[in-house]
Amino acid sequence: MIQVAIMGHGVVGSGVCSILTTHKKKLYSAIGEEVYIKRILDLREFPDSPLADRFTKEFNDILTDVEIRVVAEVMGGIHPAYEFTAQLLKSGKSVVTSNKELVATHGAELLAIAKENNANYLFEASVGGGIPILRPMNQCLVANNVHEVAGILNGTTNFILTKMIDDGMEFDDALKLAQELGFAERNPAADVEGHDACRKICILASLASGKHVYPKGIHTEGITNISLNDVKYASSFNSVIKLIGDVKFLENGKLDIFVAPMIVNRHSQLANIDNEFNGIMVRGDCTDDVVFYGKGAGSLPTASAVVADIIDCCKHLKARKYLFWADSNNENVLPYNESVTAVYLRFSTNDKEASIAEVKDLFGDIVQLSITNESENEFAVVTKAMTIGEINDKLNQVKKSKLLSNIRIADL
Amino acid sequence: MIQVAIMGHGVVGSGVCSILTTHKKKLYSAIGEEVYIKRILDLREFPDSPLADRFTKEFNDILTDVEIRVVAEVMGGIHPAYEFTAQLLKSGKSVVTSNKELVATHGAELLAIAKENNANYLFEASVGGGIPILRPMNQCLVANNVHEVAGILNGTTNFILTKMIDDGMEFDDALKLAQELGFAERNPAADVEGHDACRKICILASLASGKHVYPKGIHTEGITNISLNDVKYASSFNSVIKLIGDVKFLENGKLDIFVAPMIVNRHSQLANIDNEFNGIMVRGDCTDDVVFYGKGAGSLPTASAVVADIIDCCKHLKARKYLFWADSNNENVLPYNESVTAVYLRFSTNDKEASIAEVKDLFGDIVQLSITNESENEFAVVTKAMTIGEINDKLNQVKKSKLLSNIRIADL
Repeated sequence: MIQVAIMGHGVVGSGVCSILTTHKKKLYSAIGEEVYIKRILDLREFPDSPLADRFTKEFNDILTDVEIRVVAEVMGGIHPAYEFTAQLLKSGKSVVTSNKELVATHGAELLAIAKENNANYLFEASVGGGIPILRPMNQCLVANNVHEVAGILNGTTNFILTKMIDDGMEFDDALKLAQELGFAERNPAADVEGHDACRKICILASLASGKHVYPKGIHTEGITNISLNDVKYASSFNSVIKLIGDVKFLENGKLDIFVAPMIVNRHSQLANIDNEFNGIMVRGDCTDDVVFYGKGAGSLPTASAVVADIIDCCKHLKARKYLFWADSNNENVLPYNESVTAVYLRFSTNDKEASIAEVKDLFGDIVQLSITNESENEFAVVTKAMTIGEINDKLNQVKKSKLLSNIRIADL
Repeated sequence: MIQVAIMGHGVVGSGVCSILTTHKKKLYSAIGEEVYIKRILDLREFPDSPLADRFTKEFNDILTDVEIRVVAEVMGGIHPAYEFTAQLLKSGKSVVTSNKELVATHGAELLAIAKENNANYLFEASVGGGIPILRPMNQCLVANNVHEVAGILNGTTNFILTKMIDDGMEFDDALKLAQELGFAERNPAADVEGHDACRKICILASLASGKHVYPKGIHTEGITNISLNDVKYASSFNSVIKLIGDVKFLENGKLDIFVAPMIVNRHSQLANIDNEFNGIMVRGDCTDDVVFYGKGAGSLPTASAVVADIIDCCKHLKARKYLFWADSNNENVLPYNESVTAVYLRFSTNDKEASIAEVKDLFGDIVQLSITNESENEFAVVTKAMTIGEINDKLNQVKKSKLLSNIRIADL
């Protein structure tokens, strides 16, 4: 019998309890031993839970219990999850988590503490919820030099964009619907402004490069400025708008990493990932594109990834897993100004002909897009590829029209 | 330094050599030791290879070399791959392979030999080429009860069907193009008749159920009878025709497993997997649908999966991995007659009205399909769901028309 503890009894934590309880036979056959939930840490009371006798409000009940070998941290947030995790790892217990904020912010340090103490720190659930991604990247794709990882990493924003694309809903209405259906939080900032996706692409970039990439300073754009007209112009370009977390590993050793809405050709596998689903594309030099698709959030999908990590820890109580990356200070991150891309630009103007001529003059070869019922006072173009710095320089010189939208064209 | 051998220097074997040679640094950082190719077994001569001095025609040079710890079997076929693998495992060497025919035919026995001798037998490359699938199923999805695994498991047939669907090519022309492009062998029977896909779904079913499922006796249909009219009728039903390997794990413990062309709704993730690509959907009770997409064949994609297994063996020279399933005699396989599905039926007739009335009378609720320029002597319908046995019974009673096509409707 292997004794475990769960810290947090919210959406994911209650899912972990549920799977450990209802899938006993399945788990036993995977490990060859029973997994026993000894303690559940939560400040709230759960008197009606069948596990009511296991609840505690005292972290020390877990930390000092030598019988507890593996702890699932599913509290979320940085504090006190960070302090608790560090202490548990120092005491030689393995910790598994779905806490992307903590991994993205303190992953290198916690991995180092785990290594020093011959414990495991695993976090498959932190990216892509129930979608297997970190372990496949670390194990199955290990013979590849990974050139790029790009993904739809946030289900809330993908749901909103899908409603805008498929049903012609405005952003605000789609957000409201997402909130009603439980796909968006009451305060949706972390999702719609791209911060959640940024944490996840940083974790993927850290794993692929072997060096921690911190979210701080990474260019992060959300979808709050996307309008229905942008969706329509994209459609005329045989494309859809998706919020993409992207990291390219350049030949000079730099990481071109950002989160931004992108115009994605309908032929891309990522274009077909709709609603609350996530999809992650890994481009390896041997495999070419490999894509992982599934539910990126939700109680049971996320909890099933947490439980898979618990099982892995139970199997490796003595041997450490090889998941590890070193610390860094983001010194390899390419300044966003140097990132190269074609862009879609939408302008308002009082003199369309003169404005288009000006844009053409500044940007050189452009493709003008057109939609039905196009306003006389609006136009949209797609430029050739150049650096963000050059694009911004040229945009500063635009006199005859006003920039409404500026969206990267994806090469995915 | 860990010494390995490679048996077979064909498409996959030369890819394995290439990756082990060109990705030395990447592999070193994964294992912490160098991987050294000590021997390559092939009956042919490769005097110009940079590794010419390592080639041997004698299997015993590998078997008796105690320094060789891990062997990649990439010869293909059953004999002598089976005998060689068994002997290597008995001598305590770990074996990795891309040989789906061998795994599907003798997997349970070889896994048992590996277990007895504390060695590993790994075969990630045998299903889905470079797509990570066996390890994610075995590790990341282990907390799920898997209800169904369904996939496009053969790139050759998917390429042919894509050309029929997108370009209106006839089967024979599409096959010829596939052969010209190297996606199909000169003797394409194993691909177009579904045997290759059958081996792969049997491996997936064995892994998911923990009991070997043998290809012998599994219902296996290929795509040689699919006509352009079937493609058009499917399109009118907002669907595409895909060759699917499918296994459902029924509540009564039976496995509903088969390979057949299926009519797949365009909204399914599998409908968007085109050309030579493969895609595998795993339906778990916690994760819901998870889909893995990528190149299912080819030298470097497949070789990269073989090398990932080599690395895993190198990391686990003392500890066995947990990949295992027990032997069986297919006693849990549902008789195909009891498999339940809706079907698409296409008939030729001299009296359309009377024929449709007859089919309706026999099958009850049907949906009649229609295409532009439909022949006066042809019609197509979709039935409700019933067992294959019932469908065949009813078809035997059809008098007024002649059955041209009979294709399952997918629920994917």
